[in-house]
Amino acid sequence: MAFTPATEKLIQALQALPGVGVRSAQRMALQLLEREPETGQRLSSALSDALTLVHKCPQCRTLTEDDLCGVCANPDRDASVICVVASDVDRAGIEMSAAFQGRYFVLHGVLSPIDGIGPETLGLVELVELARSGEVSEIMLALDDRLESEATVHFIKEQFKESGLTVTRVPFHQMKSGALDQADSRVIEQALTQKQTLGFEHD
Amino acid sequence: MAFTPATEKLIQALQALPGVGVRSAQRMALQLLEREPETGQRLSSALSDALTLVHKCPQCRTLTEDDLCGVCANPDRDASVICVVASDVDRAGIEMSAAFQGRYFVLHGVLSPIDGIGPETLGLVELVELARSGEVSEIMLALDDRLESEATVHFIKEQFKESGLTVTRVPFHQMKSGALDQADSRVIEQALTQKQTLGFEHD
Repeated sequence: MAFTPATEKLIQALQALPGVGVRSAQRMALQLLEREPETGQRLSSALSDALTLVHKCPQCRTLTEDDLCGVCANPDRDASVICVVASDVDRAGIEMSAAFQGRYFVLHGVLSPIDGIGPETLGLVELVELARSGEVSEIMLALDDRLESEATVHFIKEQFKESGLTVTRVPFHQMKSGALDQADSRVIEQALTQKQTLGFEHD
Repeated sequence: MAFTPATEKLIQALQALPGVGVRSAQRMALQLLEREPETGQRLSSALSDALTLVHKCPQCRTLTEDDLCGVCANPDRDASVICVVASDVDRAGIEMSAAFQGRYFVLHGVLSPIDGIGPETLGLVELVELARSGEVSEIMLALDDRLESEATVHFIKEQFKESGLTVTRVPFHQMKSGALDQADSRVIEQALTQKQTLGFEHD
């Protein structure tokens, strides 16, 4: 073995981060152990703090440190529209634009059977339950147009076929899900005004 | 603020890793919090274990979990030659080639005043002390030929000007320091046989 057992274990743990291969993981581990133990300590406690404090809002799955997220806890928000986003980053982007007054539902992913991401992982049962609460009249999908996102849009639309709710879609085709916080607020605002109602084919 | 305070702190801590920008750090943090808390827990404990268990060998600065590293603790190793490397990865590469029977000294970097890496950070005082121990007759430099490495070679050579020790250099010009574990063992073996003695200009 080239490194000590604890070093090897650290290299393996770092490799589980997205975009980190074995070489980067080695470089990271050695930099922390050789020269920057304080950086390592800081990361270790930031990780354990975040994992303890941060959880999904039981209503909309936004990451929060409170019982309910700020939007769900705010009685002034419009409870009739739920904006469905793929990631907390997208929710943050739309929220920063201040152009949306409704509530959110965060999928934390899109359907991807190959990665084992099915409807349960995305909380779609909870979404349907939330929509049944009575106050909700519109499900607004803010997803990009990648193949998996399209399949997710289709699947969600089908869930609301007999519900009497309106399902709309915001034209975020130019923007990638998971990157809406980088988009210009005016672009987000304009996309929101251009949402389209999705029709159901009735058999 | 787009994310919760503990999430923001985690994103900042991840950005301190080499090669991780703000976007990658966000992606990493959200992936851990949204979908892979076990990965995060594992990384947090791997970090704190490694930082507690792993330290530099007091004699040669190799990362070890024991009082002395395996090479320094092994009485069968040739104590007359010290191979100086820039990183623990290079030590591991040479060790895996099984072509070197002497001992090591790991700098954990090369001279880089702009990054605040001076002779003390590299442990050069300890190297000179170790070389004075009597058993040592040769300092073998296994560094690449980048500008900072060349300056480091020159600086170390000067430290041994009046010492009576032989200072040699292994021709690792084709290989980058910090990547010797990727080199073919035969290439390392051959480079070791082609080491050259560095002369001193006597004033």
